[in-house]
Amino acid sequence: MASIRPILIVAGVGNGTGTGAATAREFAKAGYRVALVARNADHLKRTAEDIKSTGGEAAPFPISAYDYPSLTGVFSSIKKHWPDSTPRVAVWNAGLTTLKPFLELTEKEVRETIDTNVVAAFAFAREAILTFKDLDINEKGKRGSLIFTSATAATRGNKTTSAFAAGKFGLRALSQSLNKEFGPQNIHVSTAIIDGPILTEKTREYLGARADKEDARLDPESIAKAYMYLVNQDRSAWTWELDLRPAHETW
Amino acid sequence: MASIRPILIVAGVGNGTGTGAATAREFAKAGYRVALVARNADHLKRTAEDIKSTGGEAAPFPISAYDYPSLTGVFSSIKKHWPDSTPRVAVWNAGLTTLKPFLELTEKEVRETIDTNVVAAFAFAREAILTFKDLDINEKGKRGSLIFTSATAATRGNKTTSAFAAGKFGLRALSQSLNKEFGPQNIHVSTAIIDGPILTEKTREYLGARADKEDARLDPESIAKAYMYLVNQDRSAWTWELDLRPAHETW
Amino acid sequence: MASIRPILIVAGVGNGTGTGAATAREFAKAGYRVALVARNADHLKRTAEDIKSTGGEAAPFPISAYDYPSLTGVFSSIKKHWPDSTPRVAVWNAGLTTLKPFLELTEKEVRETIDTNVVAAFAFAREAILTFKDLDINEKGKRGSLIFTSATAATRGNKTTSAFAAGKFGLRALSQSLNKEFGPQNIHVSTAIIDGPILTEKTREYLGARADKEDARLDPESIAKAYMYLVNQDRSAWTWELDLRPAHETW
Amino acid sequence: MASIRPILIVAGVGNGTGTGAATAREFAKAGYRVALVARNADHLKRTAEDIKSTGGEAAPFPISAYDYPSLTGVFSSIKKHWPDSTPRVAVWNAGLTTLKPFLELTEKEVRETIDTNVVAAFAFAREAILTFKDLDINEKGKRGSLIFTSATAATRGNKTTSAFAAGKFGLRALSQSLNKEFGPQNIHVSTAIIDGPILTEKTREYLGARADKEDARLDPESIAKAYMYLVNQDRSAWTWELDLRPAHETW
Repeated sequence: MASIRPILIVAGVGNGTGTGAATAREFAKAGYRVALVARNADHLKRTAEDIKSTGGEAAPFPISAYDYPSLTGVFSSIKKHWPDSTPRVAVWNAGLTTLKPFLELTEKEVRETIDTNVVAAFAFAREAILTFKDLDINEKGKRGSLIFTSATAATRGNKTTSAFAAGKFGLRALSQSLNKEFGPQNIHVSTAIIDGPILTEKTREYLGARADKEDARLDPESIAKAYMYLVNQDRSAWTWELDLRPAHETW
Repeated sequence: MASIRPILIVAGVGNGTGTGAATAREFAKAGYRVALVARNADHLKRTAEDIKSTGGEAAPFPISAYDYPSLTGVFSSIKKHWPDSTPRVAVWNAGLTTLKPFLELTEKEVRETIDTNVVAAFAFAREAILTFKDLDINEKGKRGSLIFTSATAATRGNKTTSAFAAGKFGLRALSQSLNKEFGPQNIHVSTAIIDGPILTEKTREYLGARADKEDARLDPESIAKAYMYLVNQDRSAWTWELDLRPAHETW
Repeated sequence: MASIRPILIVAGVGNGTGTGAATAREFAKAGYRVALVARNADHLKRTAEDIKSTGGEAAPFPISAYDYPSLTGVFSSIKKHWPDSTPRVAVWNAGLTTLKPFLELTEKEVRETIDTNVVAAFAFAREAILTFKDLDINEKGKRGSLIFTSATAATRGNKTTSAFAAGKFGLRALSQSLNKEFGPQNIHVSTAIIDGPILTEKTREYLGARADKEDARLDPESIAKAYMYLVNQDRSAWTWELDLRPAHETW
Repeated sequence: MASIRPILIVAGVGNGTGTGAATAREFAKAGYRVALVARNADHLKRTAEDIKSTGGEAAPFPISAYDYPSLTGVFSSIKKHWPDSTPRVAVWNAGLTTLKPFLELTEKEVRETIDTNVVAAFAFAREAILTFKDLDINEKGKRGSLIFTSATAATRGNKTTSAFAAGKFGLRALSQSLNKEFGPQNIHVSTAIIDGPILTEKTREYLGARADKEDARLDPESIAKAYMYLVNQDRSAWTWELDLRPAHETW
């Protein structure tokens, strides 16, 4: 890695107050150039400005949809944007949380939930793996790190989660398969199972008093630190999956 | 149930030598009317004839694709075909086994694998649940039974199984969610995790000497008996998931 | 099996109204000679009488403790009692349900819980495997069947279940290891994960209105039927683990 | 924590080249006083000297056995040894790896394996929890951290692992139960599932060429860093369980 600043690509940035944006800030602080990928161009731009205002490097890469052609295009744009750098970390933080009784789910909702949570993740993973596989091994013994943000719904289905859980189960299978297939090529694939509500601008109201109780909801910055830890694990002892939850969460 | 013969709907019948057809024969023998659903009309017809020749009742319901409109249509046709009967058992035995290194998977293959294994199962489950929910409770304490045929890939991803495992994980999530959501309505949803090669006309050659070794491969009839057992479990003690494997399988 | 009546050995019989006794009755009805093993000689005797009064064969084999020497002794006594028969099925239904906040557990309680749920099960399994391994393969393709009664605590620890869950997790490990080790010798080892309250004389009061609601608690007879099904699975498709719960159980 | 140096208690130190000793060194470097607990007094003394020679603080606390009285005694001795400090981290790294075909296991081996891996861990956990529960919350929002070193055998039983897996499954249940029970009291309980061979003086020979291949075995120092990360997770997002394996491990 030496003198060349590595790139973090993070997909799923929301309005700048959640996990994606916190990850971007955490890695920017550590010297990464940050490529922000999401559908809302305004949000992306604002998050990029925010990072730059504190001395970091960041650029927005809006896409029209989380599909194969868009994601292929965006990886290509990122490489062109910083031709002297290489992407070393890719974080998949996109996804659709669909919570509905089974019989109320329309065909469109099922399809979109599965597409966004599984098929789009395949597309993103493909670009990440293709990018990493030809890189040199870095000082941690890795060509690159691919991290998936997941949820408890990846480990058990429940009432009202049939579509969401199907998506997150599928993502988990992808992540485990990739870890096994590309570990031997020194590409580190891992998943964080987020078990509890994340404090964002959006969830603050819903959380009420819990919002200010540090043991009652996840801080996006703490998740970002977990991702930094995963990226910094060396090749001799790396993690496929870890769970993250607030101290007081009932599980 | 009394005097009215119940209907089994089985989707995914193959060439008549696998799990779907064995299930059809097993239930026909037990007095069920059997609705055979699959894409190959010739195979379906042959399997239906085969069942009828041994005194059973069966009818073929070919579909053009395992999608929402086709499956909605087929349930409607089945009910019209036997207006004095009610479907009490639905077995989902369709699916696409895609085994390929991750980077060789095309977008189309990923999409088809996920669509067939997950989205189509949602469509089938929807029709089954809609059909069962208005029925009376039968002598086992159930309105109906929905069984998914699954595989070990539902429990762990592996090299070359990223797409297939994502599909089977997703199916498992669906199945578990439905069990929890519809158990309180006395609809029994369960899954069989098939762990090992099933002896069919197709696999016989590939299996070689294993084909004739009863401890080395699954007999479709034995799987069918497991399904009959699940259907006959009463409401006080029913199973969501069981694994089935040959005695000598290494796992 | 032919003309020789096989023996069922069931350990953990309680007061005759639970899973152990129901299993004994189910197998007696199917023509098994039933060896009843437990610590309470009076209960055993009564259950044996009960079975004999309905035309079955049964004998009580009280033991002082579920430890290695007692269990070795009891298997030997059983074989002597019916010298012309062979034990083909062994059901381990013993165990200690310890539910206590962690800090209230005494050393003695921890030790007893682990000993009864794990170490004693090793002793019982040893005798069962030693007995089965030299038998001929029966018409189902098996030398013998060993079934462990387990509980949801085998799959997740919880507040107040540290000791109980440690015992049931340990039992699950034993059961899985044995399935893998002795499947190749055609000995079928399996586990039933009981998820919900079982209706017995003891639990009837605690259950209140649930006792008479068939979807709200497990019927010991239904569990016994599951065990009969496991024993009757043939070698081509057998189950290691299945869950059993009432239709209306929240899980 | 402020000006008072916290204490790490690590049980299971081996000959000073494994996970326990690496954890001790890692925490000593970070300013912890290190209490070394194990049965071999000479090894302990040497590891303590080693840490002190590099500017750390450490003291040996040999015990005769990993049982309740010894562990109660040792926690008391540690508190007396550093009366102005408080234990904030307890790492359980002891255990017995028993790998044997089931029928070759003696009663003594089963009992010792279960006792060391489960019952002794209960005793250690009890002392740790009792110590932590009355402490103030530190700057990470915790009263204390309790970490269990575990192994893949905690997640699946296998041929030759019946006793070992029963022990590790039991430990996992304990760990999960404690996380759920004491998280609400801000005590962080977690487990590392070590999946692969750890490079120690003992394993070096057995590993052969793998010993020098960083992707083929775990470095104890990397495991120690994982433990430091767990301890430094804040209360808003902490981990119960993570797996650690070398990049090239087949799993």
